[in-house]
Amino acid sequence: MLLRIDHVGIACRSLEEAIERYSSVFGLAVVSRERNSEQGVREAMLATSGESSYVQLLEPLGDDTPVGRFLARRGEGIHHVGYAVADVVSALETIGGRGVRLIDRRPRHGSMGASIAFLHPADLGGVLTELVQPRGVHET
Amino acid sequence: MLLRIDHVGIACRSLEEAIERYSSVFGLAVVSRERNSEQGVREAMLATSGESSYVQLLEPLGDDTPVGRFLARRGEGIHHVGYAVADVVSALETIGGRGVRLIDRRPRHGSMGASIAFLHPADLGGVLTELVQPRGVHET
Repeated sequence: MLLRIDHVGIACRSLEEAIERYSSVFGLAVVSRERNSEQGVREAMLATSGESSYVQLLEPLGDDTPVGRFLARRGEGIHHVGYAVADVVSALETIGGRGVRLIDRRPRHGSMGASIAFLHPADLGGVLTELVQPRGVHET
Repeated sequence: MLLRIDHVGIACRSLEEAIERYSSVFGLAVVSRERNSEQGVREAMLATSGESSYVQLLEPLGDDTPVGRFLARRGEGIHHVGYAVADVVSALETIGGRGVRLIDRRPRHGSMGASIAFLHPADLGGVLTELVQPRGVHET
């Protein structure tokens, strides 16, 4: 069901500083920048050279957002992990049927046109987990 | 330099319970189990279906170990991210030269015969970062 690790989501106070750090230290390039009001973040996706997995840098749009509260509670660091799936609707149905609480019962819009959904960390050993069906990918 | 996300390392109190969870919820299979006294962990690697990225579950061998202290401070959750590189010695030299403090100045033994090294989270926005040169991979 999980094809690969699609990305790690990293909470940062300053998106520009974090981009500068990942560019200068690792030579990673920004492939997408978005503002997602629904999720309360400004974000950037930086591609590894294999181009199948990404570093997602997340700056909160305000203190009273999920990432804002995470920063207040834990400081900067890894916020979540996203796994690529072929069919996010089917994966949600299967995983929900196995007793994991779904934050999103239906997929919503994610980075770079993906369909995404979050699973509840309380049922996954404290790990906020995202399912990602990349744009253009569909189970056959 | 970073080829892909190789794994996420997840700290858990019970390795057996965590393996059971990842197997039953996501259908992931254990491909390696190891005890690493140097790092103070018992661990399992579970492969995604693409087999190029892994979930690494980490149970501390005692309270006074890095993962034991992480659990006491933060609870269960994502402990670090590991990126695959072609040549860990060369990557360490480059990254160290860019001002990032190295936890390991020389590679040490990691999971499944890999050569690994950790970078200091204080210079990477709170993210404990591991470089992984998988066994048998060498820059040409």
